[in-house]
Amino acid sequence: MKNHKKLNEMKLKLTLFFILTVFTIKAQFVDFHRDSVMLRNIYTQALTEGKAYNWLHHICYNVGARLSGSYGEKKMIAYTQEELEKLGLKVNLQSVMVPHWVRGLPEYAYIETAKDKTINVPILALGGSVATPATGIKASVVEFKSLQDLENADINQVVGKIVFLNGALPNAMINTFDAYGACGSQRYSGARIAVDKGAVAVIVRSLSHKVDDHPHTGVMSYENLPKSRQIPAAAISTQGADLLSSLLSLNPNLQFYFKQNCRTLADVPSSNVIAEIKGSTYPDEIIAFGAHLDSWDVGHGAHDDGAGVAQSMEVIRIFNHLNYKPKRTIRIVLFANEENGARGGLKYAEESKKRNENHIFALESDAGGFAPRGFAFSGEAKKIAKVKSWGKLFEPYYIHLFEKGYPGTDINPLKNDRTLLAGLTPDSQRYFDHHHCQTDVFEAVNKRELELGAATMASMIYLIDQYGLD
Amino acid sequence: MKNHKKLNEMKLKLTLFFILTVFTIKAQFVDFHRDSVMLRNIYTQALTEGKAYNWLHHICYNVGARLSGSYGEKKMIAYTQEELEKLGLKVNLQSVMVPHWVRGLPEYAYIETAKDKTINVPILALGGSVATPATGIKASVVEFKSLQDLENADINQVVGKIVFLNGALPNAMINTFDAYGACGSQRYSGARIAVDKGAVAVIVRSLSHKVDDHPHTGVMSYENLPKSRQIPAAAISTQGADLLSSLLSLNPNLQFYFKQNCRTLADVPSSNVIAEIKGSTYPDEIIAFGAHLDSWDVGHGAHDDGAGVAQSMEVIRIFNHLNYKPKRTIRIVLFANEENGARGGLKYAEESKKRNENHIFALESDAGGFAPRGFAFSGEAKKIAKVKSWGKLFEPYYIHLFEKGYPGTDINPLKNDRTLLAGLTPDSQRYFDHHHCQTDVFEAVNKRELELGAATMASMIYLIDQYGLD
Repeated sequence: MKNHKKLNEMKLKLTLFFILTVFTIKAQFVDFHRDSVMLRNIYTQALTEGKAYNWLHHICYNVGARLSGSYGEKKMIAYTQEELEKLGLKVNLQSVMVPHWVRGLPEYAYIETAKDKTINVPILALGGSVATPATGIKASVVEFKSLQDLENADINQVVGKIVFLNGALPNAMINTFDAYGACGSQRYSGARIAVDKGAVAVIVRSLSHKVDDHPHTGVMSYENLPKSRQIPAAAISTQGADLLSSLLSLNPNLQFYFKQNCRTLADVPSSNVIAEIKGSTYPDEIIAFGAHLDSWDVGHGAHDDGAGVAQSMEVIRIFNHLNYKPKRTIRIVLFANEENGARGGLKYAEESKKRNENHIFALESDAGGFAPRGFAFSGEAKKIAKVKSWGKLFEPYYIHLFEKGYPGTDINPLKNDRTLLAGLTPDSQRYFDHHHCQTDVFEAVNKRELELGAATMASMIYLIDQYGLD
Repeated sequence: MKNHKKLNEMKLKLTLFFILTVFTIKAQFVDFHRDSVMLRNIYTQALTEGKAYNWLHHICYNVGARLSGSYGEKKMIAYTQEELEKLGLKVNLQSVMVPHWVRGLPEYAYIETAKDKTINVPILALGGSVATPATGIKASVVEFKSLQDLENADINQVVGKIVFLNGALPNAMINTFDAYGACGSQRYSGARIAVDKGAVAVIVRSLSHKVDDHPHTGVMSYENLPKSRQIPAAAISTQGADLLSSLLSLNPNLQFYFKQNCRTLADVPSSNVIAEIKGSTYPDEIIAFGAHLDSWDVGHGAHDDGAGVAQSMEVIRIFNHLNYKPKRTIRIVLFANEENGARGGLKYAEESKKRNENHIFALESDAGGFAPRGFAFSGEAKKIAKVKSWGKLFEPYYIHLFEKGYPGTDINPLKNDRTLLAGLTPDSQRYFDHHHCQTDVFEAVNKRELELGAATMASMIYLIDQYGLD
C-alpha cells in the first residue's frame, strides 16, 4: 500500500512536471514570438522612418561643436529640450556647474632642425591645459615611448626640455578601446609626471590608429599641482609625431616651438536634460538611458556623442510610434560635461541617490554611431546571464556581444549592488580615427548604422521593461 | 559472483571512460591552445605588419579602374603576378576570353519640365548597354516601382516611352545584400522586359541605400534579343531618381533626354592569376581562395574587389611570414571578369574539372573590405557544422557568423557534392553606398577592417588545412 501510494505520488509528480514543462515551453514560445515581432517592428521603424539621422544632422550643422561652457552647449541643451518636448515629454533641466575651458586662437607649432629651417606640424592644446607664454615656448625635445619610460627617466635627461610622449596605440589589440585604454594615461597624466622631472611642456602623440595630419585633443589633468607649476600640454598629429621622432633620431638637438592660447575660466552653470515615461505597473523601477550633450570644440562631435544623443531620442520616438506603454519608468538622460569633468553624470547619480531612486538598468551610447554589435555590462552575473538568454532574439540583427565591460563614464556613478549598467557596443575599428578630432563630422556617420544602434537600444530597453532583471 | 563481476566490469568501464574523457579533453585542449596561439599570430601579423593596405593603395592609385578588356585590367594582372612572385610563388596565368564593353564619352542627361526648362541629372550607362543614337534620346517617361509592375503594365502605357524603374532598396532588411537581391533584377532584366512593352530606353534607380548624386552602374543583359531590338539602359543617381519621380507627379508629360556612347567590342583575351603552395601531406586536397581582378570603370574598385585581392595576397604573406607549411594545397585564384560575364570563375571551374581536381574548400572575398563578421557557407550541413564547432577560436576577433548563404560569383561554378564553398562576410551596412560607383575609392576602406578580413580568411584556411572537412 505504502509503495503503491508512492508510485501514485510519483506518477502525479511526473504528470505535473510534464504539464508544467509543456506550459513553460509554450509560455516561452508565445513570448518569443511576441518579442521577436516587437523587435522586428522596432528595427523596421528605425530603418524606415527613423529620425536619428536628421537629428544628428541638426546637431552637427546647426548646433555644432559644444564644449562645456560654450555657446554651442547652450544651443544643444535648448535643441534637445525642444525635440523631446515635440515627442510629448515634459523635460526637466537638472542644474550642474561645469568647467569652462576655452581654446582661444588656434595653436601654432614647428620643428626647427637648424637655424631658419622649420617645418610646421599640426597640434591641438589638450583640454584643461594652460597656455604657453604669449611668445610661445621653444626648447629641445626628449622623446619617450610611454608614460612609464618618462616615470623611469633620470631628471637630468628631462629638465628644461619639452617632453614628447610618443606611445602609439597598440595595433594588435582587436578592440580599439583596449588600445586606447593602454596608452590613454600619457595624455591624461603626462604633464603631471613631466613637471616632477623639470620639463617645460609636454607634446603627446594623438590617440589614434590612423597616421594623418589631424591632432586629437582630450582631457588632461594637473591633479593637485599649484597653478604656478603647471606646464602647457598639447597633442600632435600622428604624422607630426612620426616626423618629429625621425627628425630627433637624426638631430637630438633640434628645437620644438609651439604656442597655444587656451585658458580655464570660472565654472559655469549647465544642465542635464531629463525626461521620462512613467511606468504603468512598476513606476518606481527606473530604466535610464542616454548619452552626453557636450563634445570637444573641434569637428562636429558626430560620433562623440551626437550619435548617442540622436539614438537616445530615437528610442523614445520609436516607443511613441509603436504606441508602447512601458511597465517600468523609461527615462532619457542627456548628460552635461562628459568630456572634461564628467560633472553631469556625477550630478545625476548624486540627485538620484538623494531621492532614493531605484535604477534597475542604465544604458549609455558613447562609443560611436557605428554598426552595433552588442552590449558591455557591469553588474551582477545573474542579471547579465538573464540578458544573455535573450540573445536569440537579437540574432537577426547581428547583435552577438553580451559581455562584461565598461559601460560608460556618464552612468558609471550609478554603480551599486542592484543596478545593471550597460554600454552600447558598436564596431570599434574606426572610432579612434575620428575621436576628439576635426574629422568627427556628420559625414563620418552612416545612416543605417546609426539607426541600427538606436533600434538595438530600444530592443534591450523593451525586453528589460517586459521581464525586469530579477 | 556474477554480480561482483558485473560490478568490476562496470568499474573498469567507468575507469576507461574517465581516462578516455580526460585524454580527449586534454587532446582538445592542446589543439585549442595551439590553434588559438596560431590565430593570435595571424591577426597580429595582419594588424602590425600587414601589406594589404599598401597593395590596395597601389591597386587604387597606380592600377585604377580595371573593367574587363581595359588597359587597367592588363595592369592589374601584371601587378598581382609580380607581387605574388615577390612572395616566392610561381604564377600561372590561365587564359580566358572576356567581354569588352567600353563607356566612351561621359553620359549626359536632363529632365525637361517645359520648353527650355531643363535640369541635369547624373546617369551612368549600365554595363553591356547599347548607346543612344548620336543625337541622344528624348521621350516622355513612365515610372514603375518594380520590375513586376512593368511586367504587369499595359503595353499602351509604355510604348514609345522611356521606362523609369524606380524600385528603392528596401531599408528594413538588415543584411543589405538581401535588399540588393530584392531589386537587382530591375537593373539586370529591365531593358529586356521593357523592349516587349515597346519602350525606347530604360532608366534605372541606382541600387544604393544612400540618397546622393552618384549613379551606380552594373551589368545588364538583353538575353537573346537581336541587336536591332536592343534599347539603351542607364542608371540614374538615387537623388536624380527622387527628383524625376516628384517632377513626374507634377507633370506626367515631362520629357527625359539622355545620351550615352558605350559599345560592346569583340571579346578579348584575359587571364585568371593562379598560384599555390603544395600541401605536404595531402597535396591533392585543394583549398582555393581569392577575389576578382576586374572592377567597374568608375572609382577605384576599392571595396569591389581591390580589397578582396589585397586580402587574398595577404593570406599568402602571413603564412610565409609565420613559416607555415600547409598539409593541403593552398591555392590563390584571382579571377578575371567577375563584373560583366563571370567568365574567369567559369573558366577556372571548367579547367579544374578537366583535371579532376579535388577542391575541399573554396573561399571568396567579394563583399567589401569592411569589418569581418564571419562566413556564408554553401555545402554539406555536416561540413558547415564542423566549421561552426571552431567558433570559439574566432570569438576574440568578434567573428560570429557561420551560416548558410551565397558564397560568391567566382567560386559558385565549383559547386558540387564534396566542396564546401564560403564567402567572407563583412559588415554589410555601407557596401551599397559605394558599390559600382565613383565613391568606391581607397579612402572608403579602413586599414584595420581590411586587415581583420585578411586575418579571418587566413585563420579559416589554417583550420581547414589542419583538420580537413571530413
